[in-house]
Amino acid sequence: MREVVIAGVGIHKFGRFEGKSFEQIGQEAVRMALKDANNTYFKDVQIAFCGHMHGGTGAGHRTLAGIGLTGIPIVNVETACASGATALQQASQGIAAGLYDVALAFGVEKMPRGFMRMTSFPQWQVLSGLAVNPVGFALRATRHMAEYGTTEEQLAKVSVKNHKNAVLNPYAMYQKALTMEEILNSPMVCYPLRLLMFCAPCEGAAVAILCGRDMASKYTSKPVTVAAVYTSVAQYGTSESNAGAGDIGHSTKIQNTEVTTVLANQAYEISGVGPEDLDLVELQDTDSFSEIRFYEELGLCQPGEGGRLIDEGRTEVGGDIPVSVSGGLLSKGEPTGASALGQVVEVTWQLRGEAGPRQVSGAKVGLCHVTGAGGNAAVTILKR
Amino acid sequence: MREVVIAGVGIHKFGRFEGKSFEQIGQEAVRMALKDANNTYFKDVQIAFCGHMHGGTGAGHRTLAGIGLTGIPIVNVETACASGATALQQASQGIAAGLYDVALAFGVEKMPRGFMRMTSFPQWQVLSGLAVNPVGFALRATRHMAEYGTTEEQLAKVSVKNHKNAVLNPYAMYQKALTMEEILNSPMVCYPLRLLMFCAPCEGAAVAILCGRDMASKYTSKPVTVAAVYTSVAQYGTSESNAGAGDIGHSTKIQNTEVTTVLANQAYEISGVGPEDLDLVELQDTDSFSEIRFYEELGLCQPGEGGRLIDEGRTEVGGDIPVSVSGGLLSKGEPTGASALGQVVEVTWQLRGEAGPRQVSGAKVGLCHVTGAGGNAAVTILKR
Repeated sequence: MREVVIAGVGIHKFGRFEGKSFEQIGQEAVRMALKDANNTYFKDVQIAFCGHMHGGTGAGHRTLAGIGLTGIPIVNVETACASGATALQQASQGIAAGLYDVALAFGVEKMPRGFMRMTSFPQWQVLSGLAVNPVGFALRATRHMAEYGTTEEQLAKVSVKNHKNAVLNPYAMYQKALTMEEILNSPMVCYPLRLLMFCAPCEGAAVAILCGRDMASKYTSKPVTVAAVYTSVAQYGTSESNAGAGDIGHSTKIQNTEVTTVLANQAYEISGVGPEDLDLVELQDTDSFSEIRFYEELGLCQPGEGGRLIDEGRTEVGGDIPVSVSGGLLSKGEPTGASALGQVVEVTWQLRGEAGPRQVSGAKVGLCHVTGAGGNAAVTILKR
Repeated sequence: MREVVIAGVGIHKFGRFEGKSFEQIGQEAVRMALKDANNTYFKDVQIAFCGHMHGGTGAGHRTLAGIGLTGIPIVNVETACASGATALQQASQGIAAGLYDVALAFGVEKMPRGFMRMTSFPQWQVLSGLAVNPVGFALRATRHMAEYGTTEEQLAKVSVKNHKNAVLNPYAMYQKALTMEEILNSPMVCYPLRLLMFCAPCEGAAVAILCGRDMASKYTSKPVTVAAVYTSVAQYGTSESNAGAGDIGHSTKIQNTEVTTVLANQAYEISGVGPEDLDLVELQDTDSFSEIRFYEELGLCQPGEGGRLIDEGRTEVGGDIPVSVSGGLLSKGEPTGASALGQVVEVTWQLRGEAGPRQVSGAKVGLCHVTGAGGNAAVTILKR
């Protein structure tokens, strides 16, 4: 199959933008990506995939109507928090198979405000008060604490690290460092998770223009290869599954093979990259425990050792495997349709050596990871 | 590229089903398709695409949760009235490229009740009262009448034909023959289109299980080949375009190259089939003028001759090119996510010789066509 590379990337800052439409947010990011791809014309794009969750019908069509409607297929895709990765995957696959030369994958979102109640929880979870995301995250965290001795301080350290990283990222919703004290004294949401250990649903957009390796020189002097992009739903269910953020585990151990591990192993195999080769990782830190959990599920450490990884500073910038260098979702916020592609934008910049003050020196290989409602997950490996 | 065939099809009757959930409607159709594919297990399916427009987040996930969540990618896709065709297209493409052996394409919908106002109309159309679908259909019809002498009687004849066909289709919403008088005396919605010249938004589901030709014998003794499936958005815009149901033409002639014609020509070319080779056609008869329009755009006759085609009875069952043998959307109703795959189910049965009392004798090649909001369209050619 043909090698697929990133011809250009674009992003709209994540945050809250009153008075700015879904379409405007998406268009700014698409225009930035076209400019980044050597000022290419939109008419070069042969197919477009729009990842979104709350954009309504025709979300991608409405957005691209402001760029130019050039008679191409526009496909809106939705896989909850993995929607942007699904857009990337479908676009990548079409190029790999030789069906297209240039494809646009974009994600855009304006998350609803206020209390979020997902539609994918079964009735028994609604009735028992479990049908809000923090409860599932908290149950997983307490189980991990009980099994492995993970501490509230370790959870707080993840948040300290990511917020510190975000100070250097102008596209993050919150560019503000937080202290251990601030985090550990913030309001308890659901034990052991406190307010400053959660990401905020928000608005934003992110874009990757893909092309075949054989034509990359037309668009970029620094092609980044899409070495792997796998998406899937967790086995054994959506909300009943023991995998996926917002879901309640029902297995006797939480270390059954999680969808993240399944996808990571597929991605490592196809790309010939192991976790030890990664120069940076962007993962689904919806809450600070999730980051610790995904260290383990992605194979960055052994099961149960996630707390130690943060304690030892190994996932800091300057550590051996920097995680959430962008600030992660904890600082950037999570516009669901866009967040996966936001990671791709960050890692692309890092692999090109264009990440400015937050550059990971000499980065050659990066991994992006999302999970979400419905058991959806995706793992992407990018290489330069 | 590998040849793709239909391993099994399923459908849930189109209509209104109080007290039956979106998920139940979808599940019944998926189970029927699995049974049809030689009682295959759902675990054989390697990827699933769910076309829907109003199902909410995780529509496909929630539906398949009642069948078995086997750790596969489930991708929700939306392209308005072409959503089901997009599911078919993405599923077909993955098999053609060798990425999957067995893929599920399904469409399911419970259309909202009451007055429908699409989100994709530009503000000037809303302010001028054009932003409801019948207005666009009617403007096209009056233009055609002025240019070619198409008559109200010809419009009524389309509705007579399709409702007559539907009497033999137990999956249609309305199984009731209508007379010319009933139609021409029904309330005027928007001149020249009357109530009984429109399809009804409704509920339903339809499914195609696809596989590679090389493994078809495991699933079916009557494989039907997906000879072409093309989807696209109209050039020059969504609601501003001169293509797509519900859109307002702005060109000086309505016979510029419409998206339907572009896609049909692509499909004819790749499949080696011309309009003269088609044994039956299912098309987007949202209203009875649309059927006449699409006769022309699909190349079944010359521009302006659509009215004559219906007058001469050539599109009746028994004519040289039967159209809407199923009863069409006029009789079946239109559950947007499902309607494209509903056509595929009908044509598959016809090509297998399993269409019972409405069988088109000796049918070997059929075409399915949808268009809709946002300028979305799709053309599929099936062969036995």
